[in-house]
Formats: sequence, C-alpha cells, structure tokens
Amino acid sequence: MDIPEYKIALIVGAGEGLSGSLARLFSREGIRVALAARSTEKLGALCSETGARAYACDATKAEDVERLFGLVEREIGTPDIVVYNASGRTRGPFLELVPAQVEQTIAISAFGGFLVAQEAAKRMLPNRKGAILFTGASASVKGYAQSAPFAMGKFALRGLAQSMARELSPQGIHIAHFVIDGGIRSKARVEPADRPDSMLDPDAIALSYWNVLQQPRSAWSWELELRPWVEKF
Amino acid sequence: MDIPEYKIALIVGAGEGLSGSLARLFSREGIRVALAARSTEKLGALCSETGARAYACDATKAEDVERLFGLVEREIGTPDIVVYNASGRTRGPFLELVPAQVEQTIAISAFGGFLVAQEAAKRMLPNRKGAILFTGASASVKGYAQSAPFAMGKFALRGLAQSMARELSPQGIHIAHFVIDGGIRSKARVEPADRPDSMLDPDAIALSYWNVLQQPRSAWSWELELRPWVEKF
Amino acid sequence: MDIPEYKIALIVGAGEGLSGSLARLFSREGIRVALAARSTEKLGALCSETGARAYACDATKAEDVERLFGLVEREIGTPDIVVYNASGRTRGPFLELVPAQVEQTIAISAFGGFLVAQEAAKRMLPNRKGAILFTGASASVKGYAQSAPFAMGKFALRGLAQSMARELSPQGIHIAHFVIDGGIRSKARVEPADRPDSMLDPDAIALSYWNVLQQPRSAWSWELELRPWVEKF
Amino acid sequence: MDIPEYKIALIVGAGEGLSGSLARLFSREGIRVALAARSTEKLGALCSETGARAYACDATKAEDVERLFGLVEREIGTPDIVVYNASGRTRGPFLELVPAQVEQTIAISAFGGFLVAQEAAKRMLPNRKGAILFTGASASVKGYAQSAPFAMGKFALRGLAQSMARELSPQGIHIAHFVIDGGIRSKARVEPADRPDSMLDPDAIALSYWNVLQQPRSAWSWELELRPWVEKF
Repeated sequence: MDIPEYKIALIVGAGEGLSGSLARLFSREGIRVALAARSTEKLGALCSETGARAYACDATKAEDVERLFGLVEREIGTPDIVVYNASGRTRGPFLELVPAQVEQTIAISAFGGFLVAQEAAKRMLPNRKGAILFTGASASVKGYAQSAPFAMGKFALRGLAQSMARELSPQGIHIAHFVIDGGIRSKARVEPADRPDSMLDPDAIALSYWNVLQQPRSAWSWELELRPWVEKF
Repeated sequence: MDIPEYKIALIVGAGEGLSGSLARLFSREGIRVALAARSTEKLGALCSETGARAYACDATKAEDVERLFGLVEREIGTPDIVVYNASGRTRGPFLELVPAQVEQTIAISAFGGFLVAQEAAKRMLPNRKGAILFTGASASVKGYAQSAPFAMGKFALRGLAQSMARELSPQGIHIAHFVIDGGIRSKARVEPADRPDSMLDPDAIALSYWNVLQQPRSAWSWELELRPWVEKF
Repeated sequence: MDIPEYKIALIVGAGEGLSGSLARLFSREGIRVALAARSTEKLGALCSETGARAYACDATKAEDVERLFGLVEREIGTPDIVVYNASGRTRGPFLELVPAQVEQTIAISAFGGFLVAQEAAKRMLPNRKGAILFTGASASVKGYAQSAPFAMGKFALRGLAQSMARELSPQGIHIAHFVIDGGIRSKARVEPADRPDSMLDPDAIALSYWNVLQQPRSAWSWELELRPWVEKF
Repeated sequence: MDIPEYKIALIVGAGEGLSGSLARLFSREGIRVALAARSTEKLGALCSETGARAYACDATKAEDVERLFGLVEREIGTPDIVVYNASGRTRGPFLELVPAQVEQTIAISAFGGFLVAQEAAKRMLPNRKGAILFTGASASVKGYAQSAPFAMGKFALRGLAQSMARELSPQGIHIAHFVIDGGIRSKARVEPADRPDSMLDPDAIALSYWNVLQQPRSAWSWELELRPWVEKF
C-alpha cells in the first residue's frame, strides 16, 4: 500500500483560518508551504510560524496566476499539493443583487479555481503525480434562498472538480472537493459554551484534507463532506 | 385545481431547435413570443411562422439584457414566461483549455442566466406570478472529462435555478430547471434509422416544458430530467 | 411526435387520495381502472364513481400479486399502466423501533413494489410497451431523523425504479418515480386558509403523473419531484 | 482537537477481504476485535493472526443479533466500533429474478444492518460515544440494469445510515456510510499487471475507515466514496 508523499504545497486564497491550519499541518509533515492571497498583509505571523512564503495574487487574473506559479517554482519548487480556498460571498434578496458583484463572486469562487488548477495540472501531469484540492461549502450542493451568487460560484467549482477528477485521476493526479457544511471556528467567531464543537475546528478540517492526501491511489475519494456533529443537514 | 395561464413568452438564446419548438407551441396556445439571440439573422423563418418578434441581445451584458426587457415590454408586453436557453460549449483536454474561452463559457451559460432571470423576476414579483425556465444538460449534474468549462457553466446555472426556486417559489414564481440528457434532433443531425427516437425530439422537450408550466402551484416541479428511452445514464 | 396511448390501469396500494385522483383522471381519459388494496372496503364509492374494479391483495405476498394480475387480466385486460402507491410508515426514535414493524415497512414500501413491477413487466415486455410508476416521498432521497424504516423502504423503492429504468426503458417500458415532497390534501387534512395550496392537491399530482405518461419516448423522465410552492426543501 | 479513542470493534458480515484488513488495522491500534459471520469456518486464520474472536450469527434474525451483542459484551466488552459489511448480491435480468432471493438480498443487505445498528446504538447512546459504519457500493447511489435487488438493498442501507446520521450524530454517535466503487482486490481476484491499482486494496479501504473514525466531532463525514484512480464513474 503506497502512501503518496509530498514536498511542496501551495494554498491559494489563504487567510488565517483553514489555510493557517493547513499550513501548520503541512509544515509539521516536512512540506514546504507557499501561501497566495489578494493581499499578503495578514499572512506575516503565519509565515513566521510555519516558514511559509507569501505571494500576492489575484486568482481571477490569468497572468497573475501564471506569475504566481513561476515565482513559487523558482523560489520554493514545483508544488505537488495545490489547494484552492478562495471564494466570494455575495448574498441578499435576489432582486437586490448587483450584477458586477455576482460576476465577481463567480470569478473568484470558480474561474480562479480553474486558472489555478490548470497551472497546477500543467506541472503535475508530466510527473503523473500530485494533488489538487478544492474547498467547497454546503452551497456547493444546495442552492439556498438569498444566496444565488454563492451557489453559482460553488456549484461551478464543484463541476470543475468533478470534471477534473474524471479526466485527471486516471493520469495520476488526485482531485478532491470538500463540502464544508457549517461555520468554521476562528478567533473572531466561537460557538457558545453550551454547544461544544458546534463549529468546525479548522485543525479538524485540515486533518481530513491530509487524510485524503494520504489515500493510496487504489482507493481515492474525490469528495468529502465535513460538518459538526450537531449540524442540521 | 388552478392551471396557470400565460400571455407573453420571452426565449433567450433562441436558435432553431428547442426554441423553435417552444415558440410554435406557445404560439399555438395563444401566447405571444419574443425571441432573443446574439444574432437574429437565423430567426426570420421562425418569426414568420409563429408571429414571434426577434431581438438582438448579448445576454452576458447587463445593459443589453435590460434594454431587451424594456423593448419587449414596450412592443409586446411584460413576459410571464421567460426561458433561458443560451449556453457555450468549450471542450477539450484540460491543459488545452483557453482561459478567455472558459470565462466566456461560464458567462454565457450561467451569468447571462442570472441577468435574464433578475430582469424577469423584477417584473414578475410585483404580480407574484410567472415562470422562469432554465435549460440544462447532463453536464448540469455530471462533470465529464474534457468538459470542465461546460460543467462549470451548467453546474452554476443549476445552482442559480435551485437558489431561485427556494427563494422565489414561495413568492409565486415557478422556477424550473431541465436536465436535457442526450442529443437534440435537428435538420442537421438525425439519429440512424435503426435507432428510432434515440435523439430528443425538440417538440417532445417543448411538451414537457409546457406541462411543467401548467402545474398548479400546489404541486410544482423545480427540476425535470429528459432523455431518450435508449440513452445510457 | 408519438404520444403513448393506454387502455388499462392498475393502481396498487389504492386509497382515497392520490389513487382516487388517478382513477378519476384515467377514467376520464377512457382508460379502464383496476384498484388493489389490502382491504377493498373503502373503495366502493370510488368504484361507483369511476367504474373501477377493486381487488383485495397483500402486495407483500408473491402469490397474492400473481393472483391479482391473473384476475385483472381475465376480468378487465392486461394493464399497460401500473402504479405502485403502497407504503408503510413506521416512525419513532431509533431505539424504540420494533424490528418486525421495520421489516414490514420495508416489505410493503419496497418488496411489494418489486413483486408488482415484475408481474407488470412480464406482461408489458412482450409488447415492448407500457408504463410502471412508483410513488415516492421526500424520504426517498433524504433520510430524516426518527424515520429510518420509512427511509429504508423508500430509498429501496427508488433503487428499484432506477435500476428498472436503466434496464427496461430501452425495451420500451416507461419507468417513472415520483418524489412527493409535502403533505397531500385530503378530506381529513386540509391546509389553513392563510396558507393556500400549501398541501399537495392529489388532482395536481395525478396531472403530473398523466403528463409523464404522455411523454413521447424520445424524451422520457424517469423521476419527477413535486412539492407545494411554499414547501421548504 | 479531540481524536476519538476506541477499545472494542465488532465487524458483522466478516469475510477475508475488507474485514480482514479492518481487523488487522484495529488490532494494530490496540483495539480488540469481534468478528461475526453466518459461518465462522473461514475466520480461523484471521482470528489467530489478530487475536479476534469469531461469532456465528445470521444478521437477518433479531434474536441472533441480540445474542451476538450479549456474547461479545460478556466475552470481550461493549463494542464502541460496529461495522456492518454484510450484503447479498442477487443479479440477473429483471424477469428472471426470484422473489424469495430478492427478499433475502434486501434482508441481508439492509434489514440486518438495521438490527445490528439498533443493538449497537442501544449500547453506545448511554455513553454518547461510539461509531457505526456501513459498507455500501456504487449500487448504493446508482441503480444499475440487471441489478435491482442489490440496488434495493444498498439504497435501503444508505437510507438507514443517513437517517441514523441525522438522528444519532447530535447524540454523539458517529455514523458513516462508505460507497465502495470498484472491485476489491483479493487472493482470488487481482488486477492485470498493466492496470496497477485498478482494484481497491482492502488495506487502503480500511485506512479510510480508520481516518473517518479518527475525525474529531467538530468535523465529521457521514459518507465517503472510494474508488481506484482509473475507475470510470
């Protein structure tokens, strides 16, 4: 049973929550980490803690994404794990949605995922090895009222991931999509004491990402739902 | 049991196939028809046959879509049926996909659907009455290999439709999404004689659209799959 | 476009609600109707009204189901529409469920559906013509808390229907499964006046069954969800 | 982040394949193992290797299942992991299916799962702790032609698992359902050399079961699909 091994991870759409947990976990496992975000300002502490390098990148721009991969390749090496975490979240009554914001939500939630995944796949396919992970939400599989743009973006990202899984898995690239169903705990937002673990611990999410990364290719998952034990679904 | 009644239909992304069948059916039922397409050149015969009016419109442009609804309203009346048929179909091995074409496929398959649906809903919600229909494909629910952009667009359109169904159905607007699974018969493309009805007859599809439109609100469908009897699924 | 024609319908698991609406609709369309139920006592009025004949049958017993089809064949003719409506509904906290009742719920909700469908298919396949319809519920696609036995029975019935659709549709038999999501209005149970049409009108459900029956084989649906406009989903 | 700990596992429907891998893995992790099967004859070697105890049990009989849990409790202790692996697989053209075999397939694939899960839950709920895992197949989510009975059983088992997940997860019991999509490698059946890892390695499946068991309750999966990298889906 061959457990895949990885050396370099790139997390796009990095913030402090899930990306922080992933960066710490990867770093503990001896994997070097690159973080990309529209703005790298808030990533300083995480970089110090994990030895990660931060890159500014607007994932909705093809040229930005190309440049990102070029830089990471030069400065750290070719990533064999790429995680796409970015998403936009425009909400509101259907009639009040602003077209330009809807367009931007789809761009950041889905088109950026395509751009990043394509640059990643270009580098992984020659080695027939690597993993591309997408972070979805309950909105990936359920279109909620007053949440059309987010559903559009997240459904599209899932369509991308599923299509890639069918095409690239047989070429050795592990594609996985995570349906995160529930709020993620953060410094700013913690569940009430009488509802312990009713929010997703980002470390617990990262652990499941890691477990999927470690699956031998004879038994891969392409999708995983994660939700707190008390979450309604 | 109240069967809904309709007076004016607008079909966006109109071509000769399904849109033609819908236009003829609507017209037979006494419903006036407006057809919108990027180019109206090919719609002349259909307009003559059905009395429909054709409008040029790029459904990915908010100002075009607004103008379209304004014109239809002035020249025919406010549509109480709006059908979104437009889609792009960029295919190919994942590494060969051209970002600008992927972006365009998502725009025409999904964002245009949003723009049209929002203009439609603006006009229907005050009356708490009307129907907005979306034409999907098997790619709406299954991301095929070498078909990532189409899956992204069609998944997104389905997310839009489902979100709108949850939000607008209780306000009286019937939202429905059709998963067309199979090739649609056309003048240019007919099934072999020894495989009768192995392609979808556009008149048969139109009949099911009509039957959904006629559902009383106590028993609405928000989604319908249609495939030829011999289609593998 | 060939609209299928039907002559004789058999409804198994017949009560007063949906079965009554189906019997009336079929009868109006010139289709002769047979009704089967564990007890035929309550079917007298419906038989008088529609000219249907009632048959006692325990659908969970192979010999009963065989005898039923033999009788119907002799007294009315071979059914070209068969509807399976029967289901059991054992509910309650998981630990309080009684095994024998769980077994019986699965038997009536799913195994009976198999027995009836097999007898029906035996008679339809030689003609490569006919339709077998299954009545499902929201529990067919969603396993609710405190409702394990009903979910087991309804999931199983859906598995049967989908498997039959894949196998028998290409042999000319239209298989369809209906996901009825919401309460069905009846004499005993009507929605409050300030929530009009918040329950499913059985006549409206019957209309959608009929519309599926009328689909030309070039565009068949194998599944249809129906819910009131205001139903949460 | 609290990783759950377990002491005693009961695997029902144990054979040499997946159950063997699970038994070995549990045993390595210091978990004592009980194996139950209709016949315990073939379990000798596995028991020797892992220290597991084998129990004869017909999982479709309530009294057998009760006795099994009683014995395991007395001889090893109360299981905090219970895995239901049993299933029947009756296949063939729809008209040739034998009702008694269909009934038996549903009984072993689904009703037995209920009986085992209920006995398990009885013992876990007072401690608000434990895990109940169900082994499904691609037939759990897709009803294939010529496979109606297997689809009925496996759909039903999934309905049970989903209903239990909704009801028992918030009471602290981790319920998980595994969709095993592909053939499992065994001594008797190995993939061709030019298609490496095209069958599921039972050790790889067991690893994913274990990873789900280790999920902290703030991020549980209730379902996981597993398939070889080259498997079509």
